[in-house]
Amino acid sequence: MNGRSAIVSVGDELLAGRVVDTNAAWLGAALRLEGFPVAWRATVGDEPEAIARAVRLALDAAQVVVVGGGIGPTKDDVTRDGLALALGAPLAPDARALELVRRKYSERGLSVPKGSDVQALLPAGCEAIENRVGTAPGILHRVPGRGQVIAALPGVPGEFRAMSEDGVIPILRALAGRGPLPAFASLTVAGMREIDVGRLIADLMERGRDPVVGSYPKLGRVVLTVESRALPEAEAARRVREAADEIARRLGAAVVGEGDLRLNEVVARLLLECRVTLAVAESLTGGLVSDGLVEVPGISEVFLAGFVTYSNRAKTEVLGVPEALIASKGAVSEECARAMAEGARAKTGADLGFAVTGIAGPTGGSADKPVGTVWFALADAGGTVAARAAFPGDRAAIRAFTRERAFELMRRRLLRLAW
Amino acid sequence: MNGRSAIVSVGDELLAGRVVDTNAAWLGAALRLEGFPVAWRATVGDEPEAIARAVRLALDAAQVVVVGGGIGPTKDDVTRDGLALALGAPLAPDARALELVRRKYSERGLSVPKGSDVQALLPAGCEAIENRVGTAPGILHRVPGRGQVIAALPGVPGEFRAMSEDGVIPILRALAGRGPLPAFASLTVAGMREIDVGRLIADLMERGRDPVVGSYPKLGRVVLTVESRALPEAEAARRVREAADEIARRLGAAVVGEGDLRLNEVVARLLLECRVTLAVAESLTGGLVSDGLVEVPGISEVFLAGFVTYSNRAKTEVLGVPEALIASKGAVSEECARAMAEGARAKTGADLGFAVTGIAGPTGGSADKPVGTVWFALADAGGTVAARAAFPGDRAAIRAFTRERAFELMRRRLLRLAW
Repeated sequence: MNGRSAIVSVGDELLAGRVVDTNAAWLGAALRLEGFPVAWRATVGDEPEAIARAVRLALDAAQVVVVGGGIGPTKDDVTRDGLALALGAPLAPDARALELVRRKYSERGLSVPKGSDVQALLPAGCEAIENRVGTAPGILHRVPGRGQVIAALPGVPGEFRAMSEDGVIPILRALAGRGPLPAFASLTVAGMREIDVGRLIADLMERGRDPVVGSYPKLGRVVLTVESRALPEAEAARRVREAADEIARRLGAAVVGEGDLRLNEVVARLLLECRVTLAVAESLTGGLVSDGLVEVPGISEVFLAGFVTYSNRAKTEVLGVPEALIASKGAVSEECARAMAEGARAKTGADLGFAVTGIAGPTGGSADKPVGTVWFALADAGGTVAARAAFPGDRAAIRAFTRERAFELMRRRLLRLAW
Repeated sequence: MNGRSAIVSVGDELLAGRVVDTNAAWLGAALRLEGFPVAWRATVGDEPEAIARAVRLALDAAQVVVVGGGIGPTKDDVTRDGLALALGAPLAPDARALELVRRKYSERGLSVPKGSDVQALLPAGCEAIENRVGTAPGILHRVPGRGQVIAALPGVPGEFRAMSEDGVIPILRALAGRGPLPAFASLTVAGMREIDVGRLIADLMERGRDPVVGSYPKLGRVVLTVESRALPEAEAARRVREAADEIARRLGAAVVGEGDLRLNEVVARLLLECRVTLAVAESLTGGLVSDGLVEVPGISEVFLAGFVTYSNRAKTEVLGVPEALIASKGAVSEECARAMAEGARAKTGADLGFAVTGIAGPTGGSADKPVGTVWFALADAGGTVAARAAFPGDRAAIRAFTRERAFELMRRRLLRLAW
């Protein structure tokens, strides 16, 4: 029980599937890094008895119990009643909680609405946790003599996260019983399949080793994690560093960098750092590639323009792809991708013109160009390169894979790696 | 317990927050509509004892218990061991399960790999459920004499859903004890704040009424749900129809339609039905609006081209917005939005030219044009209209809200409603 945590998520909307519980996942990752890995999670509806039952089970299983949701001012918000039941402690107005609620409303120029002072009721023996984002204070209880802590937080994700960071994690750092903190690093790998990555580092991934090396496939990339629980903590850090360096050495240019990196952000940063200007021409991705660049503030200095030329007519009229080329080779062809990239570059005077054209389906495939066939091209002063890919899945999956591959190919070109 | 369900999600990756449990939300919604609303959910790690404990708790709380995850062929997959413990039934090879596993591999031209025949081990008294997508069969147990059902399904979302639909829901439909099926309808509303929608139908949303009317804010729209548990079921259906019609009457053109509708798909359908061609010019949305159209297969017939002109230079060179206009009025101005819309229309010969320009932040705001200021314009043969909006939040939120408003404004123009 010591050094473990449990999460109780409260809300009819969770049970009915109207809301996906992202809070519990986020907190699980945070608690793990704080030395309190999650032993168990429960999700219950807006009923005091169900909440009380889950809190009691959680207290049997864990040193740290976090309850999320149901602490607002409406009649559905019964977490405080459930906590009171679980602790056998009656609800009573708490002066500091009332002060926190009043301050929140007065900051907005309001007085506390009728009924909202219920947010200042706490089970006897509990204290209020300040809410930096919303109005409802959280509830903190330290179980006397047992080193156990219970915290009840609002369910709105922004409030849940802020209050976890402000009011819960600092308390955990002072708790006796916390497990040793793992040392941790992660690496983002692109342009390789997970299975091929695994083959190159199979010995490092063997079971029973420390550090533990894990691989997680994400869209268009693989994230490798390295974690050590060796003692003392400095030894854990040394082992993680050594393994991360060894992985980077073996995988070479496929390693995008340390951390869970998004390829569009990596490319945007490279463009800005190298002061290289870019124009993009897209067909099946319909603006997803341009959008991935505009996600990054300040990109207008280097991203000159994007052309969404999904129709053949637009490829000809906007980018100057010859009609005869499309008629003879097809809109999904190496020749068309090259002409689109060169057209985007010529139209804008950008250093680089990037183009992508393909078949996202569900229709439009053929024997030699099945659904999922995509051509990429990149034109610069030295000429034009092109690459073909075949992606599995439905229209949405093919378009999403294509976006990620586009950024990986841009990254490779900017780093002068082979396509 | 009768007419209720419980879900047990299995996996260390869930507790550690590496994976968000979308299966439980999806199944919760499905079970509710089948007359078995979820009473309780638990999430446990890959340990047989923890799984067994959760299954026993679930059997106390529910008639239908679904366990998700941990039934594959690896050492981490211990759900079958947990079930065996909970049921007090030893694992034994099951002929039909083995046949299902063999068939799956042979369809791919493979024999069953060493170790994978563990997937054919079931607790005594259980039967196998066919897996249409992956190799691992599910496990079904009917608790003798109690009308209770336990099903264990693979955790991969595609397999989880397929097996729920193929192998679990049909069995539930035949169970005595299932609650009355609610009648249900939903309506998508756009262009109104949730609070204003609520005011117009406050009487229909009062607590204690049947049908129950709920409102759920989504990005750029509000989804209203109407649900009745009246008996007989025909009466429930009548009440839902009546309430949905009344809501539609009161909210008028703000009702986009029945169901949870995405505005980009609604606009794409309208364009295709009305054979109206469109060109789009985007600044801060960076391709998101064009992408929303290309999401819909077949759109190339009416979506002529998209221009991502995030830089001022692109607005001038690609769309022909006069440099002097940008210098005097700014790139985020009614004048610039109008010129962009007219430029997109003129460049492509489209019936409609739509444009959006704004300040997504974090920098670039000013006193009269704070971050979140957005101008929209739509040009057609009859002239050009424009509208201003102010969106809250960070860069990602502002861009996402802008995309949704863009489609709502297109919808309004295509239906000849006021901007």
